[in-house]
Amino acid sequence: MEGDPTLRLRIFDLNCWAIRYLSKRRQERVQLIGDVLRQEGFDLVLLQEVWSERDYSDLKVKLGRSYPFSHYFRSGVIGSGLCVFSRFPILDTLLYQYSLNGYPYMLQHGDWFCGKSVGLVVAWGGSWPVLPPSCQLHAEYCREKDAYLPHRLVQAWELAQFIRHTSKAADVVLVGGDLNMHPEDVGIRLLRGWTGLRDAFAEATRFEGCEDGCTLVPGNCFTVKSELLPFPRGIRIDYVLYKVTGSFTVKCEELKTTKGTAPGMDIPFSDHEAVMATLQIRRQGQAVGDTLGTAEATLADVVTEARTEVGVGLRAAQRQRYSTGRMAVLALLLLLLQAAAALGTLVGLGAGQPFPKLSFTLLAFLAIGVLLLSTGLHLFHTMEVKMLQGTEEQMRMALRTLQEHP
Amino acid sequence: MEGDPTLRLRIFDLNCWAIRYLSKRRQERVQLIGDVLRQEGFDLVLLQEVWSERDYSDLKVKLGRSYPFSHYFRSGVIGSGLCVFSRFPILDTLLYQYSLNGYPYMLQHGDWFCGKSVGLVVAWGGSWPVLPPSCQLHAEYCREKDAYLPHRLVQAWELAQFIRHTSKAADVVLVGGDLNMHPEDVGIRLLRGWTGLRDAFAEATRFEGCEDGCTLVPGNCFTVKSELLPFPRGIRIDYVLYKVTGSFTVKCEELKTTKGTAPGMDIPFSDHEAVMATLQIRRQGQAVGDTLGTAEATLADVVTEARTEVGVGLRAAQRQRYSTGRMAVLALLLLLLQAAAALGTLVGLGAGQPFPKLSFTLLAFLAIGVLLLSTGLHLFHTMEVKMLQGTEEQMRMALRTLQEHP
Repeated sequence: MEGDPTLRLRIFDLNCWAIRYLSKRRQERVQLIGDVLRQEGFDLVLLQEVWSERDYSDLKVKLGRSYPFSHYFRSGVIGSGLCVFSRFPILDTLLYQYSLNGYPYMLQHGDWFCGKSVGLVVAWGGSWPVLPPSCQLHAEYCREKDAYLPHRLVQAWELAQFIRHTSKAADVVLVGGDLNMHPEDVGIRLLRGWTGLRDAFAEATRFEGCEDGCTLVPGNCFTVKSELLPFPRGIRIDYVLYKVTGSFTVKCEELKTTKGTAPGMDIPFSDHEAVMATLQIRRQGQAVGDTLGTAEATLADVVTEARTEVGVGLRAAQRQRYSTGRMAVLALLLLLLQAAAALGTLVGLGAGQPFPKLSFTLLAFLAIGVLLLSTGLHLFHTMEVKMLQGTEEQMRMALRTLQEHP
Repeated sequence: MEGDPTLRLRIFDLNCWAIRYLSKRRQERVQLIGDVLRQEGFDLVLLQEVWSERDYSDLKVKLGRSYPFSHYFRSGVIGSGLCVFSRFPILDTLLYQYSLNGYPYMLQHGDWFCGKSVGLVVAWGGSWPVLPPSCQLHAEYCREKDAYLPHRLVQAWELAQFIRHTSKAADVVLVGGDLNMHPEDVGIRLLRGWTGLRDAFAEATRFEGCEDGCTLVPGNCFTVKSELLPFPRGIRIDYVLYKVTGSFTVKCEELKTTKGTAPGMDIPFSDHEAVMATLQIRRQGQAVGDTLGTAEATLADVVTEARTEVGVGLRAAQRQRYSTGRMAVLALLLLLLQAAAALGTLVGLGAGQPFPKLSFTLLAFLAIGVLLLSTGLHLFHTMEVKMLQGTEEQMRMALRTLQEHP
């Protein structure tokens, strides 16, 4: 491909929803995904929520011929769920784990245990280095009362920073993944504005798929219908984003999504629709005008908006840190009081043990339990406060840089 | 400085050992560090172990004139302890937290709570972007039986990867910090080999300071003498590393360390010696020969050696994951047994309660305690296993890349 002025890249992105024992018809779907990928022969396949390494290994065996290069990213207790299959050699990888990712005690949401991350892959497409980070941000569980918004914003910011810093020498940067944000959300605007990434759906010459490019649609038999009630046409939260640097041009020739079922089948790949993009990248003498410059004023607004949201999250985290700290102190006081009472009885100060022994012991254990739990939570919220403060400060610096060195 | 072909960079690096309530004569030393930095007028100051944000703020106020730009990196429960003061504008920052950093239950070592990280700062020195990451790796507590070696190797690898990926477009890359590794250790060789960074001590034209450039010396009144018994001359674990890319040359004109006390004073800055480097960077038409190419065979050996060590750590972590998992299962079985016994008594199956109530309750609480603790540890070691596996695989990929695309 050396010297060829045009590179046509076909990208497949899917949140596979492959949770062992929990996801419906998982094995059947993973097999189906493998079959279709083998037939279609994309250049790059970015998969999320492949939680079982066994599923990855099965896919790797099946896809070995069409996609000789692949990588699975490990992180957190369960894993990152991210993997990449590529027709181009994968030269290098890097995993960046977001500093905030929900709460360990929200077991029903499970995000904390996944160690959500962005995985970076350096691939070599002919003579061009291609960087396709695959990523997934914290899920949104309730849009009206979204307690995780600050965490997702910190993640969007960290993702944007990670892409900016690692892609400086890359000719082609691709980002694919389930970003858990609607196209107009502040996090997406922040990510796009701060990195200069373009949205394949918005730029595509041809589009074929669900209305408005939605990737979570009521027509898919695995989606939870009640969650989509406010959005009867579905929502778009899976993206393919891209940019080229220097003397290249890029055009999104085609964007497709599946429409509730896998092509030619009666079951879907996943509860999410797959996103398939065809990009045409051309090498040319003169760089095309970057849209980033004109959007600088808007970018400052977006960063300001994001910073406000992070500030709201920071104050909530500070309140939680305070209340868990107070709880720990109260439990410690109770324990000390009990110890004093027990000591008093021992040295014969009081008129015998005033409490029944069992209740006394139970109370002590309860106090120890509360002390341990609240200390743990206090430490956790302390970390949360630090991370939110750090992000807020980075955003302030970004705003200053935007104003002073436009 | 635009157009000037020579940049002289004066760098100051110090592990400040400023732990509130624990470090001796902390406030006096922080004040002294501030005074000397203000007088000396370095270009870049990289500090580690500034654990109190109050100390950072005090320094910031004091150094505002000489170093108008600064940044404090927040992470972990306590913080990263990293901060940077700069004469050049700081345009951007990024924090990368190592995925492994000791064990939460090793309270006496405390590394886990610090959230050790590498902080990246993009500064603009005249017309040249300068990237000085400041970092600290996991401490070594016992060289003979070093349980943390795999963790420190994972950190060295992640640091090397982070530098490689973020510095591709940087003209000048500087790394300063307490790496907690001796110059001949595999981690240092890995870091230098994989990034192409050069060691200021080894390259310096002039050197003035402790013998062999040591930064932890018996002559310093704050060092723990027993730890230095095997090394009567001290050890060198604090480094200034650098590289330039493209058409630049760099020369380390001078390297200095303090010699057990701060210049002209009777107390030291810290228990570590400060490292002060003067670099001369020249812009020129032709790039100088990179030493990386010739060292490729050695590099493969170093990566292999590091991978073996990580493998040893992986097997230890797998054993710990297994034994904590078994402990959790046993505690759960005991609890179930107790529940069955209690239920049996309730429905009148057994001949009354065979155990005294108090012991029975205490045993149940003990079992709950063990269950919670061992489950927590099991989750932790699961994460550790994943991270070590991930690093081992990355190293395998690096070896393949080294062999196939030298």
